[in-house]
Amino acid sequence: MEFTSHQIAQLLGGRVEGEGNRKISRLAKIEEATEGAISFLSNPKYEQYIYSTGASAVLVNNTFKPKEEVKATLIYVEDAYASISTLLEEYNRIKVHSKQGLETPHFLGENVVMGTQCYIGAFTYIGRNAKIGDNVKIYPHSYIGDNVIIGNNTIVYAGVKVYSDCVIGSNCTFHSGAVIGSDGFGFAPLPDGSFKAIPQIGNVIIEDNVSIGANTTIDCATMGSTIIRKGVKLDNLIQIGHNVELGKNTVVAAQTGISGSTKLGANCMIGGQVGITGHITLADKTSIGAQSGVGGSVKKPGTAMSGSPAFDYKTNLKSFAVYKKLPQLMKRIEELEEKILTLAPLSE
Amino acid sequence: MEFTSHQIAQLLGGRVEGEGNRKISRLAKIEEATEGAISFLSNPKYEQYIYSTGASAVLVNNTFKPKEEVKATLIYVEDAYASISTLLEEYNRIKVHSKQGLETPHFLGENVVMGTQCYIGAFTYIGRNAKIGDNVKIYPHSYIGDNVIIGNNTIVYAGVKVYSDCVIGSNCTFHSGAVIGSDGFGFAPLPDGSFKAIPQIGNVIIEDNVSIGANTTIDCATMGSTIIRKGVKLDNLIQIGHNVELGKNTVVAAQTGISGSTKLGANCMIGGQVGITGHITLADKTSIGAQSGVGGSVKKPGTAMSGSPAFDYKTNLKSFAVYKKLPQLMKRIEELEEKILTLAPLSE
Amino acid sequence: MEFTSHQIAQLLGGRVEGEGNRKISRLAKIEEATEGAISFLSNPKYEQYIYSTGASAVLVNNTFKPKEEVKATLIYVEDAYASISTLLEEYNRIKVHSKQGLETPHFLGENVVMGTQCYIGAFTYIGRNAKIGDNVKIYPHSYIGDNVIIGNNTIVYAGVKVYSDCVIGSNCTFHSGAVIGSDGFGFAPLPDGSFKAIPQIGNVIIEDNVSIGANTTIDCATMGSTIIRKGVKLDNLIQIGHNVELGKNTVVAAQTGISGSTKLGANCMIGGQVGITGHITLADKTSIGAQSGVGGSVKKPGTAMSGSPAFDYKTNLKSFAVYKKLPQLMKRIEELEEKILTLAPLSE
Repeated sequence: MEFTSHQIAQLLGGRVEGEGNRKISRLAKIEEATEGAISFLSNPKYEQYIYSTGASAVLVNNTFKPKEEVKATLIYVEDAYASISTLLEEYNRIKVHSKQGLETPHFLGENVVMGTQCYIGAFTYIGRNAKIGDNVKIYPHSYIGDNVIIGNNTIVYAGVKVYSDCVIGSNCTFHSGAVIGSDGFGFAPLPDGSFKAIPQIGNVIIEDNVSIGANTTIDCATMGSTIIRKGVKLDNLIQIGHNVELGKNTVVAAQTGISGSTKLGANCMIGGQVGITGHITLADKTSIGAQSGVGGSVKKPGTAMSGSPAFDYKTNLKSFAVYKKLPQLMKRIEELEEKILTLAPLSE
Repeated sequence: MEFTSHQIAQLLGGRVEGEGNRKISRLAKIEEATEGAISFLSNPKYEQYIYSTGASAVLVNNTFKPKEEVKATLIYVEDAYASISTLLEEYNRIKVHSKQGLETPHFLGENVVMGTQCYIGAFTYIGRNAKIGDNVKIYPHSYIGDNVIIGNNTIVYAGVKVYSDCVIGSNCTFHSGAVIGSDGFGFAPLPDGSFKAIPQIGNVIIEDNVSIGANTTIDCATMGSTIIRKGVKLDNLIQIGHNVELGKNTVVAAQTGISGSTKLGANCMIGGQVGITGHITLADKTSIGAQSGVGGSVKKPGTAMSGSPAFDYKTNLKSFAVYKKLPQLMKRIEELEEKILTLAPLSE
Repeated sequence: MEFTSHQIAQLLGGRVEGEGNRKISRLAKIEEATEGAISFLSNPKYEQYIYSTGASAVLVNNTFKPKEEVKATLIYVEDAYASISTLLEEYNRIKVHSKQGLETPHFLGENVVMGTQCYIGAFTYIGRNAKIGDNVKIYPHSYIGDNVIIGNNTIVYAGVKVYSDCVIGSNCTFHSGAVIGSDGFGFAPLPDGSFKAIPQIGNVIIEDNVSIGANTTIDCATMGSTIIRKGVKLDNLIQIGHNVELGKNTVVAAQTGISGSTKLGANCMIGGQVGITGHITLADKTSIGAQSGVGGSVKKPGTAMSGSPAFDYKTNLKSFAVYKKLPQLMKRIEELEEKILTLAPLSE
């Protein structure tokens, strides 16, 4: 996208000094910026760069008074640092929400209900009876199964797959390749050593403001629902088993796996590559270090754990410090064993 | 899907008491059920709930005699518990197999051979010379490469990618995002520090009754075939390297990786997030605990291992118990070292 | 694909003895080969098999003189072993590069610039202003976002998703399900315990000769670029966080995760299922063992580490050797503690 320095000043309620028609297409640090970029000067320590920067425009505080000639167009604002943040969000909003209308070909099943201002990318599939809210953006190659409901303002990037009967809230974001509602991993052993699939007839419910990373998979419930509560943030390549429930605002880093029927409380922080076993419960605000393996329930809110299997975070740090010295420890024991042979017994 | 209580009674060979036209669209526990749900009462301990349940219908044993008024329609069957299981399977069968016919647009290459009663979802791609068996269901956005063969009754969910020349059996299930036949990770180092790709010209053979989870990846063989034997069940986000062979009925949990040319026997149970190194063999019925790292072959059938690197499961449990107390152990050694200084030497 | 023995001889500059029209469609070992396969005989130890092989054709050295009747067509070449390698590469080249032209339906946005000899599979989406180089092969269901640039000879297999504004070099390979440019995992905590997404406005830059595995995910930079340098090879199901930089010719095995803003040097070798924390730097030629967790920067080039948390590879091996014997160690300490009670104190 491209804006003029004048348009940016308008957006931020700022005042232009210099040429107002310079074209801006990206943000950059003041010391690295080149033609077409906008930068900002907030910390006076960086003032030197404003005289040499290649940026087309620089946001500065109203109080800024140049001591030398400045080639960049200056945009004066109340608070340059806060304005860059506003600009970032605006840029993002435009980037994400600028898409609108239905590209062809796409596939709409019978009785699909579609809100206003939606974007339906080419090659999108929406199954029968699906309900799509207002301002929903569904990028190309996404699959929305039969009877799925999606709330307002949700963004579904290219190639997301949502199985039939799942329910998705408002203001959610799904990144490419995420799979919602695949069968839970449930098989009953038969006498001949083979396995029979247990029918998985439940769904996945995802509440509002949830973010799901690229290629993350969330299995449907065997019966009932796998539930992702409001505000949960999942990174990429995460596995969520059948009938799992993730509490409000819980955050999970990449490549973590949570096994079937486990329940996490609200505001938990789970590191990357963590494994959490099935059928357990973690209290609110539990925090688990990266690569840990959690094998049992956590009852006390705010517990911090690490290790595989995981136990108290601080104790683990101490055990690991000794682990690194185990060969020396072994030697010290051997020395003790030798020395002891040279010592006198108590006389009776 | 929606059924009437009458239709369900017919399916189960049961007898309706109450209104036969009530609409049923899901299963629920008797104490949680609401309008539109069917429940069951098998254990007399739960009898109280049948008088207050919101369920539209309840399956009961022929021997059941209500003591109070029941609002739900009752369906009398020989064994209510067994009937619910029958119902689940029937529901699943209908859900999965109800799709039929070719949605448009789809792409069929030259000489594609297609069985009867197939479902080809919109935006499905089937390459030239592919052979698709009877009653195969291929959901939207799936890619079936040139020359691929798929056996009868196999289900391919949305967005599965099968590279050319792969061979797939009957009664298999592939979940969304699974990738079958991508290149093995083989690169030859060159003198300048760069790498040259080793051509990967093999394929993947998947036998009957195999289940492959969402976003799981199976690489083709460098030459020959990567082989997944009858009845293997793979969970989500698993990586199977080139030339791997998985024995009959082996089960692998989510996010596990198996490196190139490794062979697993029949009926192995591999936990989640396990790593298995390349070019080794695991005997039949090997079981590996979650998050383990297997670095060598296992010769004895039925071996249980855990840890990273993995060794005997029970010994590992004992070692880990001591690991948790390492700081105290260190202290005890220090105390011994101090005490020993205060002891008398043997007189010569 | 199918060739005649005559065509293969021509390709290799060899001479046919026997029938020149036999159809060859695959390679196989001489002892396992059946009708339709070509094999080779280089090591005299295997000569016995040439008299019984089911292969349709066998490559032999010019010096080879059969002692018995041979049913297979013989193709005489200077060096049978080298020829099989040439054949493999040729086969691969044909397999990969034979696709050409635009299949329908596909979607091209405004102002797309397309090179010569490209393949655009059915259901491919190419966003506006994208620039596609010469001889680029884009398989079905791939999504190339707005403004994306792809260099010459790059291969994009089915179902790859490249977000808008990413830049991809020449001679790269992307396997199915790879996601390039998804949002980095950045959220700012709010006072009420919820999180607000930090706008991710950067892109991903992938240089020449890079290979990306199936279902691997590479997040875009928060601002600026996530950078994958020349010759990097990434296996399947890898997670690369925002603003990461991977140095030239670095190789990463499957299911490894690298967190945001971390920089790896050139020619690093990273094992499978490794986790590398954010905001650190690994020197050139760092090697990390499988399943390790790297928590701090590595300054010395050529460092080898393993473990979770990772430390010096050799020391870790020694510590682990003791770990396996911890229960015995504990016993030895207990014995020392008992014995010491039976010893005489130094007389004062």
